[in-house]
Amino acid sequence: MDHDTDLNITLIGTGTIGLSFAAFHLSHTLSPSRLTIYDTRPNLEQYVQETLPKFYEEHPNSIPFSKIQIATSLKEAVSNAHIIQESGPENLQIKRELWVRVEKYAPKNALLWSSTSGIPASQQAQDMTDKTRLLVVHPYNPPHIMPLLELVPSPSTSDQVIQRTQDFWKARGRVPIHIKSETTGFVANRLAFALLREAIHLVDAGVVSVSEVDKIVESSMGPRWAVAGPFRSYHAGGGSAGLEGFFKNIGGTVQECWDDAGRVNAGKDEGWEEKVFKEAREVYGVVDTGERDRVTRRILDVLKEERDGAAREREISDSLQSESEVRLSSK
Amino acid sequence: MDHDTDLNITLIGTGTIGLSFAAFHLSHTLSPSRLTIYDTRPNLEQYVQETLPKFYEEHPNSIPFSKIQIATSLKEAVSNAHIIQESGPENLQIKRELWVRVEKYAPKNALLWSSTSGIPASQQAQDMTDKTRLLVVHPYNPPHIMPLLELVPSPSTSDQVIQRTQDFWKARGRVPIHIKSETTGFVANRLAFALLREAIHLVDAGVVSVSEVDKIVESSMGPRWAVAGPFRSYHAGGGSAGLEGFFKNIGGTVQECWDDAGRVNAGKDEGWEEKVFKEAREVYGVVDTGERDRVTRRILDVLKEERDGAAREREISDSLQSESEVRLSSK
Repeated sequence: MDHDTDLNITLIGTGTIGLSFAAFHLSHTLSPSRLTIYDTRPNLEQYVQETLPKFYEEHPNSIPFSKIQIATSLKEAVSNAHIIQESGPENLQIKRELWVRVEKYAPKNALLWSSTSGIPASQQAQDMTDKTRLLVVHPYNPPHIMPLLELVPSPSTSDQVIQRTQDFWKARGRVPIHIKSETTGFVANRLAFALLREAIHLVDAGVVSVSEVDKIVESSMGPRWAVAGPFRSYHAGGGSAGLEGFFKNIGGTVQECWDDAGRVNAGKDEGWEEKVFKEAREVYGVVDTGERDRVTRRILDVLKEERDGAAREREISDSLQSESEVRLSSK
Repeated sequence: MDHDTDLNITLIGTGTIGLSFAAFHLSHTLSPSRLTIYDTRPNLEQYVQETLPKFYEEHPNSIPFSKIQIATSLKEAVSNAHIIQESGPENLQIKRELWVRVEKYAPKNALLWSSTSGIPASQQAQDMTDKTRLLVVHPYNPPHIMPLLELVPSPSTSDQVIQRTQDFWKARGRVPIHIKSETTGFVANRLAFALLREAIHLVDAGVVSVSEVDKIVESSMGPRWAVAGPFRSYHAGGGSAGLEGFFKNIGGTVQECWDDAGRVNAGKDEGWEEKVFKEAREVYGVVDTGERDRVTRRILDVLKEERDGAAREREISDSLQSESEVRLSSK
């Protein structure tokens, strides 16, 4: 099934995430593979024709837009699929029932992926006979642009399924990360929400405004963490002593911040919503995500170019090294 | 003093931060302004000659490297200064004594800035006669590259001093943010450390590794937050309903993450240091910050280009609007 030009990908669900994945698969899957879309939405074909082009850029050699197949039943959608990816409503009952039906009609070795941001595979798979094939493939929105995919298997998901899923995304230049346990909210959101919580607290306490928090992040850790994540950055901050050196130097301040987190003007945090929501509305109105996504793409292109360049340099240096080893061993 | 070509800037302290600020001022201050450097370090002149060029790129029209003045006493360093910026050791007693001596020799209206990452201006100024001029100007490391400056005044700092400081940095394309109270760790570090804490916890609990956390952040919130900070991003995530809509949709998951933060495999967090430090060392060795800074600059250049472009478009649309208003009012 990994032969890229004969791959049947089926998407179930056509909300923002589903359509964004559709755009991704269209442009990253070599023709004559097939992309099938299924949803219980009325006038599905017309809806897809009208809304998908907003996300989509046609790429040479990949599946043409005109070749999208709209399925009229779940059975039709999944019967020949190699990959079945659901981006349906965030509702456990709906997902449980869906997978039972998918299992009934889908080929035995099809990969089953859920885009859920919170319902673990182990709960979704409760009623399945074969629980080894299902895992969460949680994107960072929007998935046709952002490289991250959190792969969150249940304890029943097989290693082979995890491996095949990783291979699929890596081959398409994406960053699939295997999350080792079904943690609440997985990892990316937990990290982001930890920062968001402190941001809300500081706004509520009157230390900074909503837009000042954004300016702070946009002009410091945003660009830094695009290039080197927090551990790598703080490890660098400690010089040759690494992360340990960093904590030796300013661990005291770090601990003070941790101890004080959420405690500025303690007790005020109840009822932050009205203040913070209002400020966001006043400052931003309705955000133009098209513009944001365009600039994000430029940033990601720079990062990709740099990483590809670094990878090429490593390859060259590896091949020079093995050449010189060959020469040494032939002496 | 704001006449840019006749500005005397004095830096006290020549650690990494001090030298990085020296590089910034050299390239952002029009000649024939003067940059004076003072430190109690032995062989200061030789040291500056040897280490500063690592940070520095010569710019046309700005102070040439050869014109840096090395002061041999504090009195000499500050007597004619318009701006005095200290980046000395993080030690309250040293800073308290420094400002008393600076006050004795410096012109009455010189701006006094501390680069401290944690010692509030109100504590540093305790022994000063005039406490209105001192404020913290906390950079995000390294300041010759990163745009953020947190301006953290004490309750005694005058509004005029805050305003002059903001004007100085804005005129140089930087992002000075006025922090409204002397919060422990200020704001940027509090936000970053909140995320770091959860990251450490998840690594310690075995959910992800050090390098996986970095890959996650580098391929999701890093690039996203470089373009749009957390509030703006989640406000956009709520569509036309904004941040409130975002919380209506997934506030449940957010709250679950907040409630669960630090609680995966609860109780294990004691003694995370050894595991996390070791993993960082093994995975990263000594980080090449030159490479990191070069790529960060590219990202910041893209962001600056986009923001300048957006600002130009706003100007054009404003001027078109005022033209049309003029025409309307002259009818």
